[in-house]
Amino acid sequence: MIKLNCDLGESFGNWQIANDASIMAHIDMANIACGFHAGDPLVMQTTIEQAVAHNVTIGAHPSYPDLQGFGRRSMSIPERELIPILHYQIAALDGMSKTKGGKVAYVKPHGALYNDMVANVDVFESVVKAVSEYDSSLPVVVQALPNTKDMEFMAEKYGISLWFEGFADRSYLTNGKLTPRSHEGALLSLAQSIQQVDSMLKNQCVTSVSGETVPLRIDTLCVHGDSSDSLDAVMHIREILGS
Amino acid sequence: MIKLNCDLGESFGNWQIANDASIMAHIDMANIACGFHAGDPLVMQTTIEQAVAHNVTIGAHPSYPDLQGFGRRSMSIPERELIPILHYQIAALDGMSKTKGGKVAYVKPHGALYNDMVANVDVFESVVKAVSEYDSSLPVVVQALPNTKDMEFMAEKYGISLWFEGFADRSYLTNGKLTPRSHEGALLSLAQSIQQVDSMLKNQCVTSVSGETVPLRIDTLCVHGDSSDSLDAVMHIREILGS
Amino acid sequence: MIKLNCDLGESFGNWQIANDASIMAHIDMANIACGFHAGDPLVMQTTIEQAVAHNVTIGAHPSYPDLQGFGRRSMSIPERELIPILHYQIAALDGMSKTKGGKVAYVKPHGALYNDMVANVDVFESVVKAVSEYDSSLPVVVQALPNTKDMEFMAEKYGISLWFEGFADRSYLTNGKLTPRSHEGALLSLAQSIQQVDSMLKNQCVTSVSGETVPLRIDTLCVHGDSSDSLDAVMHIREILGS
Amino acid sequence: MIKLNCDLGESFGNWQIANDASIMAHIDMANIACGFHAGDPLVMQTTIEQAVAHNVTIGAHPSYPDLQGFGRRSMSIPERELIPILHYQIAALDGMSKTKGGKVAYVKPHGALYNDMVANVDVFESVVKAVSEYDSSLPVVVQALPNTKDMEFMAEKYGISLWFEGFADRSYLTNGKLTPRSHEGALLSLAQSIQQVDSMLKNQCVTSVSGETVPLRIDTLCVHGDSSDSLDAVMHIREILGS
Repeated sequence: MIKLNCDLGESFGNWQIANDASIMAHIDMANIACGFHAGDPLVMQTTIEQAVAHNVTIGAHPSYPDLQGFGRRSMSIPERELIPILHYQIAALDGMSKTKGGKVAYVKPHGALYNDMVANVDVFESVVKAVSEYDSSLPVVVQALPNTKDMEFMAEKYGISLWFEGFADRSYLTNGKLTPRSHEGALLSLAQSIQQVDSMLKNQCVTSVSGETVPLRIDTLCVHGDSSDSLDAVMHIREILGS
Repeated sequence: MIKLNCDLGESFGNWQIANDASIMAHIDMANIACGFHAGDPLVMQTTIEQAVAHNVTIGAHPSYPDLQGFGRRSMSIPERELIPILHYQIAALDGMSKTKGGKVAYVKPHGALYNDMVANVDVFESVVKAVSEYDSSLPVVVQALPNTKDMEFMAEKYGISLWFEGFADRSYLTNGKLTPRSHEGALLSLAQSIQQVDSMLKNQCVTSVSGETVPLRIDTLCVHGDSSDSLDAVMHIREILGS
Repeated sequence: MIKLNCDLGESFGNWQIANDASIMAHIDMANIACGFHAGDPLVMQTTIEQAVAHNVTIGAHPSYPDLQGFGRRSMSIPERELIPILHYQIAALDGMSKTKGGKVAYVKPHGALYNDMVANVDVFESVVKAVSEYDSSLPVVVQALPNTKDMEFMAEKYGISLWFEGFADRSYLTNGKLTPRSHEGALLSLAQSIQQVDSMLKNQCVTSVSGETVPLRIDTLCVHGDSSDSLDAVMHIREILGS
Repeated sequence: MIKLNCDLGESFGNWQIANDASIMAHIDMANIACGFHAGDPLVMQTTIEQAVAHNVTIGAHPSYPDLQGFGRRSMSIPERELIPILHYQIAALDGMSKTKGGKVAYVKPHGALYNDMVANVDVFESVVKAVSEYDSSLPVVVQALPNTKDMEFMAEKYGISLWFEGFADRSYLTNGKLTPRSHEGALLSLAQSIQQVDSMLKNQCVTSVSGETVPLRIDTLCVHGDSSDSLDAVMHIREILGS
C-alpha cells in the first residue's frame, strides 16, 4: 500500500498559497509546515482543520530556521541546537493538532534539512534522535534509495521506523537519485509519471533515464497540488493506487 | 500559600542572560519564554531541564511576535490570529517539556500582552479562550487588582482558573495598579519589599504610596533573579513565605 | 498633474507576487517595500531595476517591523525607536537604488504606520522628523483629507513637503475618509472609479457615498496592479490623467 | 601603521552588550553590525553616534541573515541572493551614518561569511563584487595569511583594496591560520599577545605554536572590548602601535 503525501500549510501571513483545500480530498498524509520555513500559527491551524476534516494523517514538516530562504539553504547547525529546533516545531504542530482532534503521526524534514539528512549521516542521526526523544513511535519519511542499509541501521538504533518516499513526477538516475531539475528530462509527463508509479507499485522499481532498472522500496509518494495540472496528476495516481 | 514565579529562559542565541540557574532553587513557578519575545529552542530546552531538576512548576510565557521589542510593544492582533499564536507557543513549550519529564502547568502572558489583557476585556477573552481550547485545566496568571469580578466572570465562562499575581518590589497606587517605573518611589527597597510581602501574606492587602489600604488577593508573587540584589531579595521573601 | 503610485516589491523569498513588471509601464511612482513588511533584498533589487528601466520614480515604503502581519498591525513604538527604524529602511532602499542608477525620491509609509500617522499627530511628527533627518528634500505621501492644516503645519516645521494621496477605486465618506472595506459600496466599479478620478482632476473634489461634495487636493493616486481588472483600470485612469 | 578594529553594535533590542562606549576611545575602526546577525536600528544609530563622536572610522559588518545563530552558521546562499543581501546591509548602515555626519568607509564581513570568504573563492568573489557595485573605493577586510595572491588577484579584478587582518590574542598555526579555540594554547596571555603584536609590527610575521616564523602582512588588528581584561589589553596594544 503506497500512500500519497503532500507538503501543505506553506502560506505565511499575507502570502497565501491557495490550493491546500482542494488536494486534501485526494491524499493520505499532509506534511504541515511548522513556522520555520513557512506556516504562521493561523496557517497551521487552518491546515490542521482541513486535514482533520478529510481524515488525512498529519505529519510535522520541520525545517532549518530560514523563512527568507524557504528552508532551502543548507545551514551548519550542530546537533545540540538542531534537536531542540526539531522538538520545538514538532511539539508546536502536535499540540495545535490536538486542539482540533488530530495529532502528529510522522515527521518529514523539509528542503535542505531533508537533503542534508540523506547526504550526511550525522544530520540523519540528529533527526532520528530528535524524533525518538519526542515520540519514538513516529516514523520518519526519507528518500527511497537502492541502498538504505545505513539509514535503517541508524534508525533502528533509536527505535525509529522509516517510510521511504518516491517521486511520481521526477525521473531517476541510475544511482537512485533524482535527475536534477536543471537537467533535461528531470520532470516527467503525466503519462510517464503514471507509468513510473505503476512500476513502483507492481515491481518495486523505477526505470532510470539511462534505461536501467533501479530497485526502490516506496512507502509513500510525494505529490503536489499547486496547479490544476498537478491536481489532475494526483487524481490519476490515486486511481492507480486505489484509495 | 503564596507561590514565587519568575520570568526565565529569556536569552536568545548568542545573547545570554546568565542567572536562570541560580534562581531556580528559590522559586515555585518558572514562566518560560516560548520564542516569540525571547527564548530560542535550545534556551527553552535548557530552562526546562533546570526547572525539572529543581522540581519547579513550568508555565508558558507567551508573547506577541516581537523579538526586537522583547514583546513590550502593544500590537493590534485580532482574536482569530491571536489564538493560534498562543496555541503555537504553549504547545511548543509543552511538547518540549514532555521530552524532559515535565509539562506546562499554567500560562502567564508576557509584557504588552499581559498589560493589554488586564486593560482590554477582548484581549483577556482571547487569552482565556485560547488556553481553554488548549487545556482548560491550565490556570492563567493575571495581575491582582482590587476588583477582579469581570475577569473572574470571563474566566469562568471558559472554565479557566485565575492565579492573581502581586509584585514584591514595586509600590502600588490606590487604584491597585503599580506606580509607573518613571515615577519616584516606584521601586521598593528591600526592607519595604519585605514589609509589603508580609502585608500581602497576613492581611491580603498592600499600603499604597499615598498611605491607603488596598485589598489584594495574591496567589503568586513575581520575583526577579537578574542581579545579586534581586536574588538576595528572593531569598528573604522565600523565608517569609516558607517553602 | 496627478501622478499614479503603486505599492510594489511586496514579494518575499519563495512567495512571489507576480505582476510588478506589468504595471511599471503605466505608473509614475513605485512605493517599494523595504524588508520590514515585505521585500527581501533580492526582491528589492529586482523591483528597483524594473523602476529604473521604466523611468518610474522610486519611493521608500517603510513599515513597522512585522513580516507576519504584513505591516498591517498597529504597534506602539516610541519615537526614539521609530526614527532609526525608518532611517534603516529608507537608507537600505536608497543605497540599493544608487547601485542601479536610481535613488529614493519620496517616502510613503505602509499599512498601519500610514494609518497611525494620519490618526495620531505624534506618529506623524516622528515620520516627518525621520525623513527630515535623512533628507529634507524628500516629500512624504499622506492621505488627502478635507482639512490637512495640522499635517501641513507639522511638515513645514521639519521642512518637509507633503504629497496628498487619493484612492481611485474606493468610495469616500463625507468626512473625507474612505468607506471601510467591510461596508457595502466601499469598492467602486470601473465606471464609478473613472468618474471619481475625473472629478478629482477637474474639480479637486469627490462625491461622498451620501452624495455630498468633499473637497480634496490630490497630488497622487494609489493604484493596484495585482489583477488583470486592476491593470485595466490603471490604463483607463492613465488615459484620463494624460502621461 | 597598523589600525585597531573592533566588532561593535552587537546588541539587539532588550539584549544589551554594554562596553561599546568604553572601547571607542581606543580603536581606529568600528565594525558595526547591520541587523542581520545583531544590531537593531536603534543600536546601529547609537553605535554610529559613538563612532562619530570619537572620530572612529565606520565599517559595515554584514552577515548571513541569521539572528538566532549570530551569523556564525555557514549558509549556502547563491551569489544572486548574497549580493543584494550585502548591498542592503551596507546601504542601511551607510545611509544611517550619513544622518549623523559619518559614512561607511570599509566592509568587514562577519562570522561564517568571513570564514566562508577565506575558504571559498566563490564566496570571496561575491563579496568583493558586491562591494565593488556599491562603492569600489571601500576596502574589504580579510584574514591575513602567508599567501594571499588569489584573494588579491580577485580583488583587483573588481577594483577593490584589501585590508589584511591579524589577531592579537589568538595563536597561529604554521599555515597561518588561527589555532582553533577548542585547542590548548589558542588564546594568548596578555604578555604573549603584546609580544605577538610587536612581532607583527616590527617584523611582519608571527611565531606559530610550533615555533616557526610565519610571514603575515597585517594592516589591522582585531581587538575586543567586552571585558575589563580585553579593554586592558587593547590599551597595551594601543601603546605599542602608537596613536
